[in-house]
Amino acid sequence: MFSLLGFTFVLLALGSCRGHQDNDVDQEEPELVFQSSKYGSLWPLPQKVQISDVSFKLSSSSFSITDAKESGAGPSCGLLQLAYRRYYEYIFGGAKKQKGNRSARAGPTDLLELQVWITSPDSECDGYPSVSSDEACLETFSQLIFEDEYGTKTINSTVISDFPRFAHRGVLLDTSRHFLPIKVILTNLEIMAMNKFNVFHWHIVDDPSFPYLSRTFPNLSQKGAYHPYTHVYTPADVKMVIEFARLRGIRVVSEFDTPGHTQSWGKGQTDLLTPCYSGSKPSGTFGPVNPILNSTYDFMTQFFKEISEVFPDAYVHLGGDEVSFACWQSNPDIQKFMEQQGFGKDYRKLESFYIQKLLDIVAATNKGYIIWQEVFDNGVKLKPNTVVHVWIGSGTNSEMSKVTAAGYTTILSAPWYLDYISVGQDWLKYYNVEPLNFNGTEEQKKLVIGGEACLWGEYVDATNLTPRLWPRASAVAERLWSAKEVTDTGDAYSRLSLHRCRLVERGIPAEPLSPSFCLHEYKGI
Amino acid sequence: MFSLLGFTFVLLALGSCRGHQDNDVDQEEPELVFQSSKYGSLWPLPQKVQISDVSFKLSSSSFSITDAKESGAGPSCGLLQLAYRRYYEYIFGGAKKQKGNRSARAGPTDLLELQVWITSPDSECDGYPSVSSDEACLETFSQLIFEDEYGTKTINSTVISDFPRFAHRGVLLDTSRHFLPIKVILTNLEIMAMNKFNVFHWHIVDDPSFPYLSRTFPNLSQKGAYHPYTHVYTPADVKMVIEFARLRGIRVVSEFDTPGHTQSWGKGQTDLLTPCYSGSKPSGTFGPVNPILNSTYDFMTQFFKEISEVFPDAYVHLGGDEVSFACWQSNPDIQKFMEQQGFGKDYRKLESFYIQKLLDIVAATNKGYIIWQEVFDNGVKLKPNTVVHVWIGSGTNSEMSKVTAAGYTTILSAPWYLDYISVGQDWLKYYNVEPLNFNGTEEQKKLVIGGEACLWGEYVDATNLTPRLWPRASAVAERLWSAKEVTDTGDAYSRLSLHRCRLVERGIPAEPLSPSFCLHEYKGI
Repeated sequence: MFSLLGFTFVLLALGSCRGHQDNDVDQEEPELVFQSSKYGSLWPLPQKVQISDVSFKLSSSSFSITDAKESGAGPSCGLLQLAYRRYYEYIFGGAKKQKGNRSARAGPTDLLELQVWITSPDSECDGYPSVSSDEACLETFSQLIFEDEYGTKTINSTVISDFPRFAHRGVLLDTSRHFLPIKVILTNLEIMAMNKFNVFHWHIVDDPSFPYLSRTFPNLSQKGAYHPYTHVYTPADVKMVIEFARLRGIRVVSEFDTPGHTQSWGKGQTDLLTPCYSGSKPSGTFGPVNPILNSTYDFMTQFFKEISEVFPDAYVHLGGDEVSFACWQSNPDIQKFMEQQGFGKDYRKLESFYIQKLLDIVAATNKGYIIWQEVFDNGVKLKPNTVVHVWIGSGTNSEMSKVTAAGYTTILSAPWYLDYISVGQDWLKYYNVEPLNFNGTEEQKKLVIGGEACLWGEYVDATNLTPRLWPRASAVAERLWSAKEVTDTGDAYSRLSLHRCRLVERGIPAEPLSPSFCLHEYKGI
Repeated sequence: MFSLLGFTFVLLALGSCRGHQDNDVDQEEPELVFQSSKYGSLWPLPQKVQISDVSFKLSSSSFSITDAKESGAGPSCGLLQLAYRRYYEYIFGGAKKQKGNRSARAGPTDLLELQVWITSPDSECDGYPSVSSDEACLETFSQLIFEDEYGTKTINSTVISDFPRFAHRGVLLDTSRHFLPIKVILTNLEIMAMNKFNVFHWHIVDDPSFPYLSRTFPNLSQKGAYHPYTHVYTPADVKMVIEFARLRGIRVVSEFDTPGHTQSWGKGQTDLLTPCYSGSKPSGTFGPVNPILNSTYDFMTQFFKEISEVFPDAYVHLGGDEVSFACWQSNPDIQKFMEQQGFGKDYRKLESFYIQKLLDIVAATNKGYIIWQEVFDNGVKLKPNTVVHVWIGSGTNSEMSKVTAAGYTTILSAPWYLDYISVGQDWLKYYNVEPLNFNGTEEQKKLVIGGEACLWGEYVDATNLTPRLWPRASAVAERLWSAKEVTDTGDAYSRLSLHRCRLVERGIPAEPLSPSFCLHEYKGI
């Protein structure tokens, strides 16, 4: 089975993504393609690949990507037409289709047509991708094409059956510690699609800055962004990111992390944060969101109503990680409240009190929510459809056992914090992770819907983000897409080296794995 | 004292690099410039800086950089004219000088002119920089200019006396493990000049590839480069690099490392490398340069004659590091030779035998040589003017004691291997190095002429080299330029943050030091 951007379609057996030979249009044609090295440059490796040694040539003047007659989507599906154009350009390097060259007679071994057959009854041309959407036939097709020694675009007859192992395959980018210009975000969405990632986890605000321009509370970015005009995401910017992602089958899951990681919120919203005390007097500094004021919950209600409307995805990430209790402990009003509520000295109960109310607020907007693992650890009562995001620990992860034993859907990031760098091939470390390598029943394992590569923003911005992320995140992409048994690191190295050169050829500054070269090196600086 | 690109000229006391006020052209004018934060964005910090709070404005339509009447170099000095243009563009962001705007009357606080007075009798307009050249007035001038809140280019009256602490301030780039397109090399030369580095150590060939196109032995790159056309440096390329560097006061010191690190040489030059044996038969693999054949020395004589002509610098780096003896030990002809020479089992003697002959060959071309420390360690007899390059060890470096005790000039790289990366602000580690922190007399310390930041090429190419090198190498730049006492890391952090934003504004993808922002973020991806 093959699929593209939420449209299920099938190669060979179901007849979609078919390559048509010039002289053989009406027969059962030999299907798509490969040669030489066992799996060539395929990345991530499809579930099943059978490559024959029959090869076809592709000419930019005669090759077309078309909608199959039987297809559920046609020329009116803008998403599909844009994908055709994008992949035509990837394949032929932006070469213009030369008119009139049709007269140059196509040879018997030319591949003239890729037919795309959308078999899904629910065509998502205008909708948003969801956790159950499928993807990415055209990317695979483009990866099968190679240049022979004469520079001829060539593809081998190949049968592919494909689907992702995990439904949630994400990349987290952090636009608070450094502002990322829209161009950087869009470029990385493009690269995510080339790696069949399908979730952009937008960690949009945090302590250092609040670049999200809220229509309801414009002061948040006016005061909390690094700069109120040049370092903010306007509603139009956010729309553009969401649409650009949608066209590539990528969900945009926004994160508005509270009650900690909120220093920048306090600048534009009076009384939102807890005043810290030094002895009996306010110290002038502020701690986490103030959980004891009604105004806090009024604010959150309005704020998350806006968020639920701006971000179409069914989920919002609510954070909840790393709440420091020192400031709460210093504040006499908080102390009094703790007493009244009978929380004793257990500030985790206060944290849970806040989160509980927040979850109710967000649930009322009809969104599901994702939370960092501490919220689960601290015993907050969660809705059954809550997704718990595990980020602490590594190796055999006991947290994964606990979360799934409690029946919660889980995504894993603990082994994939790509902001940690070191000299050498650390992609192997990410690649060798087995997400289900924890103690638990089959039922528990089924609750793991995927994972995310996280590139926290302390040390990255537009100058270095892209080469630091790619192809290191590609290792995570294959782990989340390909079959569990795909663990041959030698084979992975060979394919990933070619995959990274393909990214470079598409204009992406993806860094090298080892001493090596690409036929076409990066043209920028 | 101020200096630019090998031309000594003096500010204030000697009257060069003067800023002229509109209404005060003939008086002893208030000199160059600064404001607010103590040393603003100056990097590396000059030896002496006195900043007043008198400020002047600069307008792109009225400001000029001119040759002082008394200057030893005028409009015919191409090097100087190109520097004027470059810095005019840095200062005004490439804004065109608007003709006719001269009529807009310049105010009394406008800075109209920067007069450059070359006082050195030996004008190096057409010559190459040497280890004794001075540099970099215009860069300092440009660093003093800032934008006030209205965007007006402003400079404070400032007196600067400046000279570098160390004469040899280098950056090593490795074009063998990955080929670096010329564009990448030129860009990094440009950035080196912005940091007052004055030596480009071009580690041009090594085991993985031989991109240097030799006119005498074209087979070396024809067979040994990653690709004989797209991954080589032609004579024209090399010339361009040398000229581009010369115009920025940067020496190009080429390294042709032997007898180890030469796998790529063997592909295009039969019998150059030692055949390794497996038992009594050649294994088909090759080791270091074969030191027992006359043909080896004939080759080296011709090869280094070419190198001495192609690279005008007075020094060539001959490598000599990390020679593995296993292959030599396996080869019966080598064994016989060892016996004949009475070397016993000490292969260091064989290595010295080779290096000794190589040094004689290179000395005959009238070049000085730099060698990696192993050559010294192994007791090779060196000419007194040999420069020993220390790369092993860290902290208080006993090797520095030994080399200088033996009377050799030394450059230090051991603490500055920038290919080693880790999360966080590792620039501090490079910054906190004191190169003379070893046991030795004052005489010994004087033998340390500088150091080099080394970015070995295993994991960098055009996609990621520039942000990985900058501003990390800037930390080394200040250590080698500024006074020993300049060790305030807080002050350095503040200046370096501004310096890196200035690099970004000049179009350089220099990576961030910490969560922060630049007013003008990087515009590329």
